[in-house]
Amino acid sequence: MTAPVAVLMGSDSDLPVVQGCLDKLRELEVEVDYFVLSAHRTPDLTHRFAKSAHEKGYRILIAAAGGAAHLAGVLAAVSPLPVIGIPILGEQLAGLDSLLSTVQMPAGIPVATVGVGKSGAVNAAILAVRILALGDPALAERFEAFRRGLQEKVIAKNEKLGTSLDVQSL
Amino acid sequence: MTAPVAVLMGSDSDLPVVQGCLDKLRELEVEVDYFVLSAHRTPDLTHRFAKSAHEKGYRILIAAAGGAAHLAGVLAAVSPLPVIGIPILGEQLAGLDSLLSTVQMPAGIPVATVGVGKSGAVNAAILAVRILALGDPALAERFEAFRRGLQEKVIAKNEKLGTSLDVQSL
Amino acid sequence: MTAPVAVLMGSDSDLPVVQGCLDKLRELEVEVDYFVLSAHRTPDLTHRFAKSAHEKGYRILIAAAGGAAHLAGVLAAVSPLPVIGIPILGEQLAGLDSLLSTVQMPAGIPVATVGVGKSGAVNAAILAVRILALGDPALAERFEAFRRGLQEKVIAKNEKLGTSLDVQSL
Amino acid sequence: MTAPVAVLMGSDSDLPVVQGCLDKLRELEVEVDYFVLSAHRTPDLTHRFAKSAHEKGYRILIAAAGGAAHLAGVLAAVSPLPVIGIPILGEQLAGLDSLLSTVQMPAGIPVATVGVGKSGAVNAAILAVRILALGDPALAERFEAFRRGLQEKVIAKNEKLGTSLDVQSL
Amino acid sequence: MTAPVAVLMGSDSDLPVVQGCLDKLRELEVEVDYFVLSAHRTPDLTHRFAKSAHEKGYRILIAAAGGAAHLAGVLAAVSPLPVIGIPILGEQLAGLDSLLSTVQMPAGIPVATVGVGKSGAVNAAILAVRILALGDPALAERFEAFRRGLQEKVIAKNEKLGTSLDVQSL
Amino acid sequence: MTAPVAVLMGSDSDLPVVQGCLDKLRELEVEVDYFVLSAHRTPDLTHRFAKSAHEKGYRILIAAAGGAAHLAGVLAAVSPLPVIGIPILGEQLAGLDSLLSTVQMPAGIPVATVGVGKSGAVNAAILAVRILALGDPALAERFEAFRRGLQEKVIAKNEKLGTSLDVQSL
Amino acid sequence: MTAPVAVLMGSDSDLPVVQGCLDKLRELEVEVDYFVLSAHRTPDLTHRFAKSAHEKGYRILIAAAGGAAHLAGVLAAVSPLPVIGIPILGEQLAGLDSLLSTVQMPAGIPVATVGVGKSGAVNAAILAVRILALGDPALAERFEAFRRGLQEKVIAKNEKLGTSLDVQSL
Amino acid sequence: MTAPVAVLMGSDSDLPVVQGCLDKLRELEVEVDYFVLSAHRTPDLTHRFAKSAHEKGYRILIAAAGGAAHLAGVLAAVSPLPVIGIPILGEQLAGLDSLLSTVQMPAGIPVATVGVGKSGAVNAAILAVRILALGDPALAERFEAFRRGLQEKVIAKNEKLGTSLDVQSL
Repeated sequence: MTAPVAVLMGSDSDLPVVQGCLDKLRELEVEVDYFVLSAHRTPDLTHRFAKSAHEKGYRILIAAAGGAAHLAGVLAAVSPLPVIGIPILGEQLAGLDSLLSTVQMPAGIPVATVGVGKSGAVNAAILAVRILALGDPALAERFEAFRRGLQEKVIAKNEKLGTSLDVQSL
Repeated sequence: MTAPVAVLMGSDSDLPVVQGCLDKLRELEVEVDYFVLSAHRTPDLTHRFAKSAHEKGYRILIAAAGGAAHLAGVLAAVSPLPVIGIPILGEQLAGLDSLLSTVQMPAGIPVATVGVGKSGAVNAAILAVRILALGDPALAERFEAFRRGLQEKVIAKNEKLGTSLDVQSL
Repeated sequence: MTAPVAVLMGSDSDLPVVQGCLDKLRELEVEVDYFVLSAHRTPDLTHRFAKSAHEKGYRILIAAAGGAAHLAGVLAAVSPLPVIGIPILGEQLAGLDSLLSTVQMPAGIPVATVGVGKSGAVNAAILAVRILALGDPALAERFEAFRRGLQEKVIAKNEKLGTSLDVQSL
Repeated sequence: MTAPVAVLMGSDSDLPVVQGCLDKLRELEVEVDYFVLSAHRTPDLTHRFAKSAHEKGYRILIAAAGGAAHLAGVLAAVSPLPVIGIPILGEQLAGLDSLLSTVQMPAGIPVATVGVGKSGAVNAAILAVRILALGDPALAERFEAFRRGLQEKVIAKNEKLGTSLDVQSL
Repeated sequence: MTAPVAVLMGSDSDLPVVQGCLDKLRELEVEVDYFVLSAHRTPDLTHRFAKSAHEKGYRILIAAAGGAAHLAGVLAAVSPLPVIGIPILGEQLAGLDSLLSTVQMPAGIPVATVGVGKSGAVNAAILAVRILALGDPALAERFEAFRRGLQEKVIAKNEKLGTSLDVQSL
Repeated sequence: MTAPVAVLMGSDSDLPVVQGCLDKLRELEVEVDYFVLSAHRTPDLTHRFAKSAHEKGYRILIAAAGGAAHLAGVLAAVSPLPVIGIPILGEQLAGLDSLLSTVQMPAGIPVATVGVGKSGAVNAAILAVRILALGDPALAERFEAFRRGLQEKVIAKNEKLGTSLDVQSL
Repeated sequence: MTAPVAVLMGSDSDLPVVQGCLDKLRELEVEVDYFVLSAHRTPDLTHRFAKSAHEKGYRILIAAAGGAAHLAGVLAAVSPLPVIGIPILGEQLAGLDSLLSTVQMPAGIPVATVGVGKSGAVNAAILAVRILALGDPALAERFEAFRRGLQEKVIAKNEKLGTSLDVQSL
Repeated sequence: MTAPVAVLMGSDSDLPVVQGCLDKLRELEVEVDYFVLSAHRTPDLTHRFAKSAHEKGYRILIAAAGGAAHLAGVLAAVSPLPVIGIPILGEQLAGLDSLLSTVQMPAGIPVATVGVGKSGAVNAAILAVRILALGDPALAERFEAFRRGLQEKVIAKNEKLGTSLDVQSL
């Protein structure tokens, strides 16, 4: 059976950032396939992948790319699936190039864009989980536990730092 | 029965832009409720809305806001549903403020951000449709027709302009 | 008795920057509580904190956050107290995201924004002192001494560097 | 008796924006003096104003300026009072010049910066009110009523637009 | 016979800008075909066009698009021909989105990017002419005359304005 | 005798902005020649102008240009005279392109850059006056009167608006 | 015989970036001359080089420069050849200065601009190859092999990383 | 006798950048005084310095500052001398804050702005030299030698790198 999520990255140099996406999906027990495919260096393969992705059984596509980041846009243009875009930070322009190239899609072809870089990669996973959880009660429960954990971790950090937080008295 | 999509806007002055989102959802026969609710001027109402939205039956939340655009972020922080953010263009800073305030969310709390302004508003609707279509084959068919229509409109425009396009020969 | 100032940071990773704020307040003998609380990961706790802060006796709230920095905005939306926002520099976008997310608040809900990063953190403390000194003559005097010290340090640096500065002859 | 708030603008062309600040202060029954004074065209007058402002009885200074907006910074450098800065939008650079010139103050000399343009001007008034209300219970009550009004206006707009908002059911 | 230059635009709303490109090519007697084809709304047609363009006899491809402007990038990824990109100005982000989406291509797949908007459209034509003139002496001569004309027009404007320009004395 | 100041503009469309520079120079009785000369469309003429400008008797060169604004840089590279650059606002990029192209000169070849647009054009004139006044006591006196006038105009505006300004009491 | 391509850089400190351009040209067996010549520090030499470049036999000029990057613009103004510009990243402004100074040329004088930094340098070489290949079938074949290699390298990386890519099944 | 040039820096941390300005002035045998004086931390001293600078005999003032860089603007507002501003790069906002705060002065009060950082510091010195050389033929000759040296250094670098530059044949 095909994994519900496919993660594409434009270059293997994006993997250190994308890894956070893969890890978070697996942590929430969502299977994921991943690929290095470039809108520009492998346009045919990318086109064919996008064309058949929903028939293969994928339900959500995630694409990470930097610079003139077209990968998510290509997927969204060819596939009917929801496409999530992760802008990757390059050495120049402070990430503005990849962010704007990913998010500013023309009317009709949306890319669900998350933030630039590592936080964005994690958030792409969480966004996929929120979407899949609409039709998967078990995943919805695991996600709810993850959400409670976010709060618990913050409370634990206050304890570790010895801040003035007293949850009871709030 | 609750509509599957709720659209929130931070101010009624956002309605001319948001209208494109409402229209596109209805064109694709997706019911939608809409609200003026502000992360800043009605924080309690917004918080209560977000808290109960998934229990009321909403499946996707769309939020449009400008400037320090926090509305989508508040919804994503409180509700487990997928949240789509539409950055609204203001009189200054060329839309960069609303775009960055919407998209640059911390790890764990994604907002699926679309482009600034009118194209973004339409794309929020389409993105919601792509997500809902994962579990709704009839909607998936209507969406497929919409996608074919995008191409047909482009072909028609070539004919109207008398360009050199000859689809057969491509 | 409650401290007059509460400092919130969105993540414990903000502490190295926020420390400059805490230190400056203590240097001027202003008591301060501090907390790790996130607009996005602990929305309920943050909401409850903001709701009761003025009843607990806090007089000024300071919030430090990065990226789509909503923390100060949430406090300002829920609490009637003056709220000061410190934008935290992230790895991308050169601090523009946190600055714009903090400062561009809608009419009715101001955040008193200071500069990005370490200078901003110190300035949040000084701004709180200026406000508190309006009703606290002893603090006003300590602040006046601090202000004289700023000038004296500059004069001392000229001496150390052996510049041409001759204060008498100015 | 001196008004508690003085509003300075760098040019009379800033008055249409600054008017929103003056109106909001008067709406909340806070007396206000206003002046056209420029950091650059009247440096002596501005310096002398700043030097004596707190002795004259002013408690908060608000400064509006565009471009290389130094007016708030000059006041903050010379006066011990809290200084609020309103960046004014010019014909170029989308307001980024006035925003950065106002907010990026060096450690030790804060300017409480609000958003660019008309919303910022209103927010400067509200921020002043929040600060003054710390020592003025009657003003605190008027401000509380204003805050309730923000929510009521939003509810009224929902009714006017015929949205799905049902406050009871939230 | 196929025209040597094909101009593609992402939307018929780009035509008022692109017209300057078409006019300049025709003024210099370079035949040109033009098309409305979108990287996102007609990905298959665009892909097929790009794939066969050099076999059809085109020698230079020019693409105009706004926002997340991928059209030039798609052509450059699929076709071996030189591709020139014209970034189109939208309502937001001051043209930065289309410029960065066009120019920041990954290593291996260049787009020869010209300036944003109308000047860029004219320059795309001139750049095509410079390239074609490498192998077409008659075109090189027409281009040389055009270049002389640029200087003559400037001299004529000085005369019309009555400036101090005296070409002889330089 | 040659005028001491030469003003060059890259295009006659810059004249409405540059006029403010010409007018201010004449108001202060500084003679000025002006020219339409382009770094790009008339490189030879510009080069020859720059080469002989100091021998002709010009003492200060002022250059106004937009976009990739190279005109001031060319003058500074070829002529030993002080060169002042006025960045002209275009339709896109909010003036950032002309500002950065003018000011970011490599070490060794400075352009004295003033602000973007109309204020910058006036300031180019004033900067030239400040420089010329170093060696011209009569001009220094006229400039001093102009400076006093700046303050007097501000005072007059306060009177006209009926502000609280009382110059005596400062 | 003259090489078909000349690469100019504004400073020898640009060589580490420019090297990628030289290497890629040589890898594709295109001869190349290179020079350190500055629009600002050697304006005469640069002007003379540009004036005679096409007579010497060069067919394409490539220029790399940072900051107020005028080098490519000077070449395009003086020479009739196609000019490719590589914006070099400096320590400040994230490369925006060199990008805008290179690309925003006035109508009539195009610079074919590639991306900022190392990717841009490689792409300048590839763009030159695409242009030269129009009249050189042997080069066109070598370029075609290079293009196939781009795809093969991506496939190899998938194998090395053990991704889910199965080219057959696409 | 007073030096003709005074260099002010807002903080002693600016000295490593400003040193390049001091060194270049001395290399060209222009005497220079330097000072650490802040528009914000020592407003009185700065004001008094500016007021008497031209009477003391200074002819040109150079000011270096970062962030909301007001130092040059204060000098230009108070002193009639030509004022040169060096924007200093900070840890955030890529230097845009100091550049815009320095250059975007209101009509009437110019600051001759040079580029951000080290190149700008050197250029401030050269700009001062160009101005002083208008009335100092010996300095004009030393400057001419410096300008020739710029070209000679470039030629020497070509030799060292073994490039194709043949100055004779140009």
